[in-house]
Amino acid sequence: MRNRMVTLTTDFGEGSHYVAAMKGAVYSVNPAAQIVDLTHSVAPQDLQATALFLSEVVPYYPPTTVHVVVVDPGVGTERLILCVEAVSGVFLAPDNGCWTEAVRPGDVRRVVRLADSTYWRSPVSSTFHGRDIFATAAGHLSLGTDPARLGPTVTDWKLARLPVASWDGTVIHGSIVAVDRFGNLISNVRQPVPHAGSGIKVAGKPVPQLVKTYGEAEPGTLVALIGSSGRLEFAVVNGSAAVLLGVGVGAAVEVAANV
Amino acid sequence: MRNRMVTLTTDFGEGSHYVAAMKGAVYSVNPAAQIVDLTHSVAPQDLQATALFLSEVVPYYPPTTVHVVVVDPGVGTERLILCVEAVSGVFLAPDNGCWTEAVRPGDVRRVVRLADSTYWRSPVSSTFHGRDIFATAAGHLSLGTDPARLGPTVTDWKLARLPVASWDGTVIHGSIVAVDRFGNLISNVRQPVPHAGSGIKVAGKPVPQLVKTYGEAEPGTLVALIGSSGRLEFAVVNGSAAVLLGVGVGAAVEVAANV
Amino acid sequence: MRNRMVTLTTDFGEGSHYVAAMKGAVYSVNPAAQIVDLTHSVAPQDLQATALFLSEVVPYYPPTTVHVVVVDPGVGTERLILCVEAVSGVFLAPDNGCWTEAVRPGDVRRVVRLADSTYWRSPVSSTFHGRDIFATAAGHLSLGTDPARLGPTVTDWKLARLPVASWDGTVIHGSIVAVDRFGNLISNVRQPVPHAGSGIKVAGKPVPQLVKTYGEAEPGTLVALIGSSGRLEFAVVNGSAAVLLGVGVGAAVEVAANV
Repeated sequence: MRNRMVTLTTDFGEGSHYVAAMKGAVYSVNPAAQIVDLTHSVAPQDLQATALFLSEVVPYYPPTTVHVVVVDPGVGTERLILCVEAVSGVFLAPDNGCWTEAVRPGDVRRVVRLADSTYWRSPVSSTFHGRDIFATAAGHLSLGTDPARLGPTVTDWKLARLPVASWDGTVIHGSIVAVDRFGNLISNVRQPVPHAGSGIKVAGKPVPQLVKTYGEAEPGTLVALIGSSGRLEFAVVNGSAAVLLGVGVGAAVEVAANV
Repeated sequence: MRNRMVTLTTDFGEGSHYVAAMKGAVYSVNPAAQIVDLTHSVAPQDLQATALFLSEVVPYYPPTTVHVVVVDPGVGTERLILCVEAVSGVFLAPDNGCWTEAVRPGDVRRVVRLADSTYWRSPVSSTFHGRDIFATAAGHLSLGTDPARLGPTVTDWKLARLPVASWDGTVIHGSIVAVDRFGNLISNVRQPVPHAGSGIKVAGKPVPQLVKTYGEAEPGTLVALIGSSGRLEFAVVNGSAAVLLGVGVGAAVEVAANV
Repeated sequence: MRNRMVTLTTDFGEGSHYVAAMKGAVYSVNPAAQIVDLTHSVAPQDLQATALFLSEVVPYYPPTTVHVVVVDPGVGTERLILCVEAVSGVFLAPDNGCWTEAVRPGDVRRVVRLADSTYWRSPVSSTFHGRDIFATAAGHLSLGTDPARLGPTVTDWKLARLPVASWDGTVIHGSIVAVDRFGNLISNVRQPVPHAGSGIKVAGKPVPQLVKTYGEAEPGTLVALIGSSGRLEFAVVNGSAAVLLGVGVGAAVEVAANV
């Protein structure tokens, strides 16, 4: 596999010198690398936001892509760095679970821990493994290096699962897991949502309408809908549900399924 | 035409997962696509800002470029999605006029509405046509698909024109149409500005100097100048005209042309 | 040298139409150009921040790279535009010194001033040389044009040196030169830091620990460490040193070297 695409997901901030240096480290190994910025705007060290982000994005990339994920509160400690080969893609990520929502259970083919410093910059700084290990190893993978050469196989790893909605026999209890730029509130309740439109609440407030598209409701109305990734979302047409309700990540969602 | 460049202009926000998913959708169709981010920072659903942005940028791209524009308040409604072939470039955009300031009247060669779902992802979500229709169709166009295959020809479309300056026989009456990061106020008065330097006002305040470059005036001075796109602008050297005057988009501009 | 990589460093803001137009100007000359955004988030007209940014990033790029730097308070005045060939890379930058921290003294091979308008857009606007001169000339360089063709050799140029730490026989006196997104305070004191861990102060406050990595200290603790670029930094584990201390660029740093 020559010249696999390399994507970057970090919490370094758009325009950060850390990102610019990481790209240089990839190009230093493979001047013809095809690098794609996924995001550098993850909230600092927010593993749950990273997990959600990757789960929304990775399915749309070719499965040969190498996804480099540097959201790494443990940099410089003994935490492992993993190279994960899965059905949905290849991941270079700290062993903190940030990649686990983007891979279905059973879809992991092989996981190694990075150990062979042949594939790293030299010397490796204590605080910037993103440049010295992740980006440099990604450069080698992009050139066709077999992940097995990066280090020995490991058989367990940390998970960073999103909170899961639960069902008490009458009501699905979920929560808001993200807020987007438009103020839409995105929940962990997935389709199919039973008895859609009846008995949906967010932050304790009844939501009268489950619409198919924003265009179905009047401007200013709070609506529920199934978003582009199959999640129940709350929106205000031409407005912000987050502002209207004054809530964000963690707000309770209820769907009465048998009303 | 093989491997046309694809540009992206959206209001999703830099680093948004929507943008990352759109790029993946393009690469899924054409792994060798050349994607260029123009901006993801358009104010949400601001068609006028999008129109101005594209008019400033499109003229500098090769005319074979496919410009994907997803500023789409009507997503999920019956609004059409258009593929516009024009002298200045090819546009994939909602039929809300956002592309019309970037194409001179008479320079439109053909417009089709997207109808053939062969060129879309399947299934198409109700809320994320950017990924499922625009980006996927753009991937096909980048590979050389003839726009005529995307759907039937249409002969009229919506316009999103910027406010136009007017002339009452004595004074040109215009307005501020954008504010940049430096606080410069950009107007809809285009060169040539007659009797430059005499009788120019912004937000009712006389502007004593029409300079050729920022370097001609003292730091802190409010000046008028013809900007890089031929528009009359107002600037404060080493400062912010927007802050100094406390005004923004919509502020009145007057140029007394016969004083 | 065919198809040199072109990087862009500006203060225009991520998503700015100025950046999008610059990229178009490069592609108009070389449709196959490989353009890499380093940053567009430099604080407006901040030459010191630009110099620091480039010094952190340029060493990681192939030395054939053309680095286009448009942080240019003097645009439109008589300031020169330089093309610098150095051991670390090629720079197209205003003659304001912004590139000088990224090139070691003695590593400059040749400097020319841009003079031959054959390699510029026509006409050149008074206010947007980034598009009309820098980006267009970069397109030509990317195609293999010899820098010597851009204009005549010059033998002196402006410097924009960062403040330098000094040593009074007992104490190293430095200062904070940058604050990153995590609130880490980055100083101009470079390794080796003598007698590490004894007598380090930032903004007058003693810092008890010099650690090797963030992981060595308790969350909430203020620590000093040698950062990824060899600079003495101050951090709060899982927090922000800038917020904790209420200081930023310019804050005093002291290291008692003989205690």
